[in-house]
Amino acid sequence: MVFSSWMSRLRSSSKLRHSFSHKQTTSLPACLAAEVVDFEHMRKPFLSSWAGPLLPLLLASSAGALAFQSSDNNGPSYCQAPNLDQTSKRIGGKDSTDYLVKGSYKKVPQELIEELKVICKENMTMDYDERYFHGKPQNSFHKAVNIPDVIVFPRSEEVVSKIVASCNKYKVPIVPYGGATSIEGHTLSPSGGVCIDMTLMKRVKSLNVKDMDVVVEPGIGWMELNEYLEPYGLFFPLDPGPGATIGGMCATRCSGSLAVRYGTMRENVINLKVVLANGEVVKTGSRARKSAAGYDLTRLMIGSEGTLGVITEITLRLQKIPQHSVVAMCNFPTIKDAADVAIATMLTGIQVSRVELLDEVQVRAINLANGKNLPEAPTLMFEFIGTEAYSREQTLIVQKIASEHNGSDFVFAEDPEAKKELWKIRKEALWACFAMEPNFEAMITDVCVPLSRLADLISRSKQELDSSSLVCTVIAHAGDGNFHTVVLFDPNQEEQRKEAERLNHFMVHAALDMEGTCTGEHGVGTGKMKYLEKEMGMEALKTMKRIKAALDPNDIMNPGKIIPPHVCF
Amino acid sequence: MVFSSWMSRLRSSSKLRHSFSHKQTTSLPACLAAEVVDFEHMRKPFLSSWAGPLLPLLLASSAGALAFQSSDNNGPSYCQAPNLDQTSKRIGGKDSTDYLVKGSYKKVPQELIEELKVICKENMTMDYDERYFHGKPQNSFHKAVNIPDVIVFPRSEEVVSKIVASCNKYKVPIVPYGGATSIEGHTLSPSGGVCIDMTLMKRVKSLNVKDMDVVVEPGIGWMELNEYLEPYGLFFPLDPGPGATIGGMCATRCSGSLAVRYGTMRENVINLKVVLANGEVVKTGSRARKSAAGYDLTRLMIGSEGTLGVITEITLRLQKIPQHSVVAMCNFPTIKDAADVAIATMLTGIQVSRVELLDEVQVRAINLANGKNLPEAPTLMFEFIGTEAYSREQTLIVQKIASEHNGSDFVFAEDPEAKKELWKIRKEALWACFAMEPNFEAMITDVCVPLSRLADLISRSKQELDSSSLVCTVIAHAGDGNFHTVVLFDPNQEEQRKEAERLNHFMVHAALDMEGTCTGEHGVGTGKMKYLEKEMGMEALKTMKRIKAALDPNDIMNPGKIIPPHVCF
Repeated sequence: MVFSSWMSRLRSSSKLRHSFSHKQTTSLPACLAAEVVDFEHMRKPFLSSWAGPLLPLLLASSAGALAFQSSDNNGPSYCQAPNLDQTSKRIGGKDSTDYLVKGSYKKVPQELIEELKVICKENMTMDYDERYFHGKPQNSFHKAVNIPDVIVFPRSEEVVSKIVASCNKYKVPIVPYGGATSIEGHTLSPSGGVCIDMTLMKRVKSLNVKDMDVVVEPGIGWMELNEYLEPYGLFFPLDPGPGATIGGMCATRCSGSLAVRYGTMRENVINLKVVLANGEVVKTGSRARKSAAGYDLTRLMIGSEGTLGVITEITLRLQKIPQHSVVAMCNFPTIKDAADVAIATMLTGIQVSRVELLDEVQVRAINLANGKNLPEAPTLMFEFIGTEAYSREQTLIVQKIASEHNGSDFVFAEDPEAKKELWKIRKEALWACFAMEPNFEAMITDVCVPLSRLADLISRSKQELDSSSLVCTVIAHAGDGNFHTVVLFDPNQEEQRKEAERLNHFMVHAALDMEGTCTGEHGVGTGKMKYLEKEMGMEALKTMKRIKAALDPNDIMNPGKIIPPHVCF
Repeated sequence: MVFSSWMSRLRSSSKLRHSFSHKQTTSLPACLAAEVVDFEHMRKPFLSSWAGPLLPLLLASSAGALAFQSSDNNGPSYCQAPNLDQTSKRIGGKDSTDYLVKGSYKKVPQELIEELKVICKENMTMDYDERYFHGKPQNSFHKAVNIPDVIVFPRSEEVVSKIVASCNKYKVPIVPYGGATSIEGHTLSPSGGVCIDMTLMKRVKSLNVKDMDVVVEPGIGWMELNEYLEPYGLFFPLDPGPGATIGGMCATRCSGSLAVRYGTMRENVINLKVVLANGEVVKTGSRARKSAAGYDLTRLMIGSEGTLGVITEITLRLQKIPQHSVVAMCNFPTIKDAADVAIATMLTGIQVSRVELLDEVQVRAINLANGKNLPEAPTLMFEFIGTEAYSREQTLIVQKIASEHNGSDFVFAEDPEAKKELWKIRKEALWACFAMEPNFEAMITDVCVPLSRLADLISRSKQELDSSSLVCTVIAHAGDGNFHTVVLFDPNQEEQRKEAERLNHFMVHAALDMEGTCTGEHGVGTGKMKYLEKEMGMEALKTMKRIKAALDPNDIMNPGKIIPPHVCF
């Protein structure tokens, strides 16, 4: 299976191998030796949460910023907040894709380590392997040389609160960490500090079937949650990459292929509990489905990528598992035809549940990886849900639209297993790409534009991608105007990396020129910071920074993410 | 028609009459005499925006807090921010429904008046009638003795920015003002200052049919907008009270009967432009339908009731006008049966577009006001939309549910006119109440609970309402768990007012005890401030206050609203 190949690829890669070996105990202070033995039992849930990438995929709160200092234990590593803008600089001119976030580094105080030992007991480590594992990005496109100094694995909100309050006292940065499936460097620890791995907090706290909501801890994965919910006829309708945790999905404002029908994380969270920088626990709302009671703290936290607080509890809105679904594929002579059909479908007002677009290169990758023989042409994959009659009725309407745009006849996945397989193939599209170039890495773009511009954006991008020397595939959540490309490059060839970066840059600017966004669902992290000023304007960034400073005056919460360091107010 | 009667009732009421007479020019400084003449032309759009009440209905940014100081021009009137908590006090013990917001009052500086004259030219007034009109609540339940000192009518974002920057320089409060249809005292000016009437900014700036979005100024009403959109086959799916403006609907996070299908203002705004306290103009996002680019400033502003900024532009998500709709009514022996059917309908996963519940008293009021002969029993009004086949299919499913809960056969509104009339009757439910007691005023509750608790809440409330000496009706957006009562009282009988307040208090606490919210859609204003601590916890309120202080350090933006004055951080 593609998924297993990808997992073994991950596990055998040089950068991750030793995270699984448990051989090294470099840097482990004697005071923590006992904890190493106890720590073994924590590893399993942790590893299972590393299920992997990558596509819409988000992590249990996120972090990551570029830092090119040495990572030894004497040097690192945190910003003397709130002077982030003084201690950081932007390099390479206006369009540079690089930022150096230079902290005023100092060793994590021994007093903090002692406090954390009391708070966390056996649930912490300074083991080099663990620190390395938590500090390195899965997505090679964003790098930090520094890694966290301490990893803690809280098992309760109370413990999270104490950890954060202690870090705040010593002004030591924290980086929340979950499924670590993010793209944009959210979980990097450019200034070292304390990484809070939330994956042991994964309980379902209460399921309210008649309210169609569930209260969970942040470390639970969306796939695990859906397994839990299935017997109740309910599901949570966001489907980022496997391995993403609910906490991380909140932190990065995730969505996925079903967002066209059910909305993003923004629309599907009822309330949150969040530990703020001072250790206070805030409940952001009631369990009512709608409310006009005060500032929308829930939405403020969703997408804040761990820079405003650590999410410790989430109440999610659930959906009934649809009575019936129709899954169909259709291919087109040009990618513009396919995009036009997606747009026309949305304009009918039909509530499709999925409209996924793949280009011919992506279909080729899928064929290669899965031994399939799908027509290697621009393709739309649809899902229609509802009652049986309504699903079929919608299908007929869209089939007519497709035929008016040179589309092939619909090919249906008839039985449940066939439908499941088709979405599995789609979900594993990224891994299929690696089947074409097993030793390459991937740069994955994520832009979103007003619907009417999607065909134009895809056509222009495709022209650029096709004329590049790199292998590039196109995947879009077309009903939302959300467009990804996977650009494969040889990590040993600096020129290829630069070319991948150029293509990313091209597409982001094209999207921004069309009143779009630099990130539809992957978040900002460190990777998209440089585009925010063009997209939002300096006034919006200053507003964000004022909010950040008000809630986190010592700038300990995932510093160096979202807000570009040159923003002053 | 009920609507016209209500309008004449409004116009002839003693408290409003002189606003329309233009006779008095008390307090008008000589320097503004010329403006009074020119001001005539502004009155029409302004009056048309005062179309009325009241129900889910919100205003173009809102304000209102109880203040019992004299309202003469020498005394008033603004808080010396940020000392709101020092300058205000809570009275009457924990469960008191009263707050006195005492500002450190001073006359608006003449320098500011001179600056505003330069900025606004003829579009300002200090005419007593206008100030009185803008300072008095439509809903008599919330009172302020003070009224604004100056009313300005900006015609552009640039002018708004200059007005706000000037007010900030002199630390003079501002109160944004739109349709003024709100319930909870949002547009009161307890500290005097400058009222910014946004109703002259009502242009449609661009309509993007293929993106299904529209860019508008805040002063446009939702009904006007829908008239504009109809020829394009599009509509904006939120339906608060007639007269509500889009800006005010954003400011109060409004919803209405269609929210069960399309979501609230939170889900239907793509981006905003907002003038902050320092006069900076912030664009909160791109025109893409989804984005993960930084903090969700759009959602932060939605529901902030003018306390963080003045909304000057809104990009709204639109919907296709449904191909077909079925409108049906059904009555039940008990209100619990009706509520149970609403809940069971939602649990099927069917996407009804409306599920409105009315009790027998409300139906009686409707009969009286409209010369109808509807069965005076607990009633559900449904709307099913989609293709013709699908609408009918949904209807059959719900009809079966209703019959299992002792419901009558469905009565259908067959032709477009009949459907329109049925929703009109529902929309005018409040005015129908006044038909029963023409000289009374109304206290309108607005709570929302998790769906499974709705039947219990309604039953408990109904028991309390029925045993009260006051006339009370029940109306619910039942699919959302959102529940209103209209309690009629004689404003000259203090005991009746207190009884209305007691009933409100009872229902809010009952909702909060069921993990619900004190306001599903009417907002906080001054009326719901006292419940926020119980609902959200002090930590959440402190967080809101930190944000408020960071963005509005002089506390000029609609002070005395949302955040209770005793909140310190």
